[in-house]
Amino acid sequence: MSPNNPVLSHHISSQFNEELQDVNTKFMTMGGMVEQQVANAIHALLDTDAAMAVDVQFQDNTVNRLESEIDEALTLILARRHPAAIDLRMVLAMSKANTDLERIGDEASKIARIAQTLCEEGGSPRGYMETRHIGNQVRVMIHDALDAFARLDVDQALRVMQADADIDREYQSATRTLMTYMIEDPRHISRVINVLWVLRSLERIGDHARNISEQVIYMVKGLDVRHSSVEEIEQKFQR
Amino acid sequence: MSPNNPVLSHHISSQFNEELQDVNTKFMTMGGMVEQQVANAIHALLDTDAAMAVDVQFQDNTVNRLESEIDEALTLILARRHPAAIDLRMVLAMSKANTDLERIGDEASKIARIAQTLCEEGGSPRGYMETRHIGNQVRVMIHDALDAFARLDVDQALRVMQADADIDREYQSATRTLMTYMIEDPRHISRVINVLWVLRSLERIGDHARNISEQVIYMVKGLDVRHSSVEEIEQKFQR
Repeated sequence: MSPNNPVLSHHISSQFNEELQDVNTKFMTMGGMVEQQVANAIHALLDTDAAMAVDVQFQDNTVNRLESEIDEALTLILARRHPAAIDLRMVLAMSKANTDLERIGDEASKIARIAQTLCEEGGSPRGYMETRHIGNQVRVMIHDALDAFARLDVDQALRVMQADADIDREYQSATRTLMTYMIEDPRHISRVINVLWVLRSLERIGDHARNISEQVIYMVKGLDVRHSSVEEIEQKFQR
Repeated sequence: MSPNNPVLSHHISSQFNEELQDVNTKFMTMGGMVEQQVANAIHALLDTDAAMAVDVQFQDNTVNRLESEIDEALTLILARRHPAAIDLRMVLAMSKANTDLERIGDEASKIARIAQTLCEEGGSPRGYMETRHIGNQVRVMIHDALDAFARLDVDQALRVMQADADIDREYQSATRTLMTYMIEDPRHISRVINVLWVLRSLERIGDHARNISEQVIYMVKGLDVRHSSVEEIEQKFQR
């Protein structure tokens, strides 16, 4: 497990090591799960798969349970082991990133709920191309952010943050396109608005992937980069 | 400062006490600030006050800085003081609630940005009544959640969670009303959609106030109630 992660092998206490490993494994499991939830929610929407839409919403319970278990494990580590330096930063970074993963699960559920509605009402091909495109990108962002977390890879984390800036631009452009559709053909307003909500959720998921990447940089470098641009962060690194 | 908060006075080390007090004061300052930001953002929107809209967005920098300072102070407390029991829970609850306060600030900024746009384009009286109503309610929720945090008041925290359920219902109803406006009068679609985004932000702010209240319950009772209904929580208390 995590052979490339130096934080998870340097402890004198093998018990402490094991506890950190366990919570890290759980965190990565939860990460893989929400990544899949996002993929499935978009699939359910674009391929009008109502059964899958229901399944994604149901799965959210498992993600919620994992969030609680991870926070409980982290609290126990803090109470018993008094971690310091990078160990402490890993615990705190995981605690913050844990919240982001759970929120990604929530957004996937929201998308799935809309997918279910659109399955019943009849789909809206308007904006589906944009949804597929942005959906794929944020899925990759979640994957890369988790990978950066597992390997303490600051460069990868920076790339995810850069990708988030791209997503924000594409989201703005897709929103304008959908607005034009609505004005041209007001009969489909309610369906197109549902697609707008989906895009909004995807944009939020991108933000959460960015947040997780910021925690990677905090963990490795001890720097709080939450309100800095990628350029500002790169300048900080050069100092 | 916080005469009713028993956590902030029971420590043998007066240095530790002081550190907890300081971060608590900062947290409450930040809370008061975001509450005001929400009020100002809504005011800017409803009274087409462009200068205030700009001001709210500018203020977000201060909130962001406070978020970083609070997390830094909490990390130092963990590293130096190894808090246990309710002290540890207070530090962790504040760390989570800190993120929620910052997000409330972000949503207030989003509302202010929309207010600025609508000031330039000409306002949309459609949905303003709903915005005023829901806006007032979430502002009270933030206030009450912070008050519950300051006084470790579990009953107050539960009332905030109950209020969030009301907000969610009113938000659904307001969204439906706005949808009807758009279908009836498609010329104003883009302005009405801006009001929809505002309502969405207000609904998110309500969620964050709920999150802060959940942290109050965690802090006082040691129970993780993040994925429980108010009824389920009350049953847990009776056990």
